[in-house]
Amino acid sequence: MKVDGRAYRTIWPDPDGESVIILDQTLFPHRFETARLTVVEDAARAISDMLVRGAPLIGATAAYGMALAMRADASDTALAKAYEQLHATRPTAINLRWALDRMHAVLRPLPQGDRAEAAWEEAARVCDEDVAINSAIGDNGLAIIRDIAAKKGSAPVNILTHCNAGWLATVDWGTATAPIYKAHDAGIPVHVWVDETRPRNQGAFLTAWELGRHGVPHTVIVDNAGGHLMQHGDVDMVIVGTDRTTARGDVCNKIGTYLKALAAKDNGIPFYVALPTPTIDHRVHDGIAEIPIEDRSQDEVRFISGRSGEAVTRVDLLPPGSAAANPSFDVTPARLVTALVTEKGVIPATAEAIAALS
Amino acid sequence: MKVDGRAYRTIWPDPDGESVIILDQTLFPHRFETARLTVVEDAARAISDMLVRGAPLIGATAAYGMALAMRADASDTALAKAYEQLHATRPTAINLRWALDRMHAVLRPLPQGDRAEAAWEEAARVCDEDVAINSAIGDNGLAIIRDIAAKKGSAPVNILTHCNAGWLATVDWGTATAPIYKAHDAGIPVHVWVDETRPRNQGAFLTAWELGRHGVPHTVIVDNAGGHLMQHGDVDMVIVGTDRTTARGDVCNKIGTYLKALAAKDNGIPFYVALPTPTIDHRVHDGIAEIPIEDRSQDEVRFISGRSGEAVTRVDLLPPGSAAANPSFDVTPARLVTALVTEKGVIPATAEAIAALS
Repeated sequence: MKVDGRAYRTIWPDPDGESVIILDQTLFPHRFETARLTVVEDAARAISDMLVRGAPLIGATAAYGMALAMRADASDTALAKAYEQLHATRPTAINLRWALDRMHAVLRPLPQGDRAEAAWEEAARVCDEDVAINSAIGDNGLAIIRDIAAKKGSAPVNILTHCNAGWLATVDWGTATAPIYKAHDAGIPVHVWVDETRPRNQGAFLTAWELGRHGVPHTVIVDNAGGHLMQHGDVDMVIVGTDRTTARGDVCNKIGTYLKALAAKDNGIPFYVALPTPTIDHRVHDGIAEIPIEDRSQDEVRFISGRSGEAVTRVDLLPPGSAAANPSFDVTPARLVTALVTEKGVIPATAEAIAALS
Repeated sequence: MKVDGRAYRTIWPDPDGESVIILDQTLFPHRFETARLTVVEDAARAISDMLVRGAPLIGATAAYGMALAMRADASDTALAKAYEQLHATRPTAINLRWALDRMHAVLRPLPQGDRAEAAWEEAARVCDEDVAINSAIGDNGLAIIRDIAAKKGSAPVNILTHCNAGWLATVDWGTATAPIYKAHDAGIPVHVWVDETRPRNQGAFLTAWELGRHGVPHTVIVDNAGGHLMQHGDVDMVIVGTDRTTARGDVCNKIGTYLKALAAKDNGIPFYVALPTPTIDHRVHDGIAEIPIEDRSQDEVRFISGRSGEAVTRVDLLPPGSAAANPSFDVTPARLVTALVTEKGVIPATAEAIAALS
C-alpha cells in the first residue's frame, strides 16, 4: 500500500539483485526506516528480532532468506543449514515452516548451479501469491462494504478492527484491511475505528500508522470503547484477521477479539473474519477446548514504549509488587461470526461451508 | 484499609485540629505521599487537580473544605464564597454538590461563633457515614463470596473487577472492593483479576496498588483478557462499581464495563454491581438512550505516564497524525446484571426491586 503517496510492499528484492529490503517494524510508529538483508543471518535476525512480523510476511522473509543463503553457497550442506537456521527463529510459526518446506522442495532436486536463481524466483512467487490471495480477499470483502455503503448514502461506512491484520503483516493489502483499502481506493467513504489492542498496541502502532499513511480516515480507541460505539450505532461492521480458524469456524485471534464479537452480536452488527483458506486448521474443531493459548511475558503488560520528545522511552505501568498475566490470543466461537471472508469467497463459519472449500 | 500494615482512610483530620490530611492520588502508584489541607483553597485545589477522586471522597473533601473555610472566617459571606469556590472545582459532580448542600444546611442557621466546630463535626459525620455505607455493602457482598468459596473448597475465589471502585475512591472500604476486603480479612482465599482499565489505567494504577498494599492476592490483566479467562473457568464472579444506576437497573460505569458484562453472561458467570443506594438516579430509566456519555480529551488515549528509572515520564503512544476518540463511560443494560449489592441488601436489577428500596 502507499506510504505518503509512494507504493510499498513490506519486502522486496533490491534492484542490485544482491539483497532484499524490508521495513523495520520494531521502530513503528515512531520511526519509518528500511533495513537491508544481504546474508541469511540478516533474514534470521529480522524474523527473530521481529523487524518483520505477521505469518505471511515471516514466510516471505524466510523464503528470501533461503535465496540469500543459496547466493553465498548452494551446496546441500548450506541448504540444510539455512533451513535450520531460519526455522529456529520462531519454531512455532506454521507459515515459516510452510515457506521453508516449499523452498526446500524446489531447490533440493536442482543442480547446485541453478539453485540461486531458482530460489530468487521462488521467493518472488511466494510474495506474489500472498499479494494475490489478499487482493482476492479484498475484492470479496469489498462487496460487503459496497452493500453497506449503498444503504448509508454519502455517510462513511464505520468499520471496527482489532490488532493488525494489515498490509504490514503480509506482503501487501493485509487480510482484514484488504477490503478497507479496496473500498477506500474505489472512492467509497470509509472510516475505521482502530482498537488500540493492548498489550502490544498493534492497532495503535501499526494499523493506525498504515491507514494514516495510505490516507484512510480512522480514529484510535481504547479496547474498552467498541461496545459503547456499537450500542450507539457508530459501527456498521467489524472485520478482523485470524491466526487459526478451526474446521467448524471457531476463530483464534488476538486477545480481546471475542469481546468485540459478543458486542457485535448483542447489537446486531455483522462480525467478519478475513483469512486465507490455507490458515484453516482442519484437524481442530472446538477452538476453546482444543487450541492452547500462549501466555506471553508479563513484561508486555508492565512496560510500554512511546515517544518522549525525540527519544523513544520505555515506562513501567504497574505498581511495584503487582504481577500481570498475559494470555495473548482468544477464541471467538463460530456462532458469533457472521461470515468468513476468504480468497475463494465469503462463506458462513460452519463446518459444512468450510469442508466444501477443499 | 491498610497500607503495608498501617490502617488508613483517604482523608482524616490532623490531630492538630487545624488541618486535614489526604493521600495525593496524582502520584499513584509511582509514589505514596500525603498532602495537608489548611485552607479552603487547598481543598478546592485537591479536588480540581484530582489529588482526590471518586464521588464519595470528593464529597468528603468538600465537606472538610467548608470546615476549613469556617475556621478562617465564619461569616455568611465566607460561607457563600466557600460553597461557590468548592462547587466550581468540578461542577458536574453530583456528590460534591450534595455534600456542600448538606454542610450549608447545617451551618447557615447557626450563630457564626458555633459554625467552625459544627462544620468540623459534620464533615466527620459525612466521612463516617460513607464508611458505614461501604462497610454494609461489604457485609452484603461478603455473603456472596462466602457462598462461592463454600463450593470451591480451599481454592481461591477468582473475582474480576474493572476500574477503581476501591477504598481510594471513597473514605474507606470502597464499593466493589468492600466485599473483597471483608472476605480477605475473614480468611476466605480470594484472588482478584484487575482490569488495567485504559485509558486512565485506574485498575493498574489504583486498584492493583490498594489490593497489593492491603495484602490481597491479585493479577493485573489488559482489558482484552477477561473474556478469555471467563471462557476457561478462571473467573468465579465479576464485581464493579457504578457512577449512576437507573430506575430500572441499567448501570453506567467506566468504559469497557459492558464488554465484561457480556462475557460474564455468555459464560454463566455472575456479574454484580456494588453501589450506595443514593447513587440510584430514579429519574432515568433507559440508560443507553438517556445518559449522555462524556467524551474526554483524546490526550488520555495518546499519552501515558509511567516510571522510567527514578522519574515519572509521559510518552506518546499514537502515530503522528492519528486522532483518538475517548468516550469515558458505557451503560450495561440491567438484563446483564445478576444483582445490585447495596448497603440495604442484595437486590435484583429490576424496576420493582429498586422502587421497593425507598
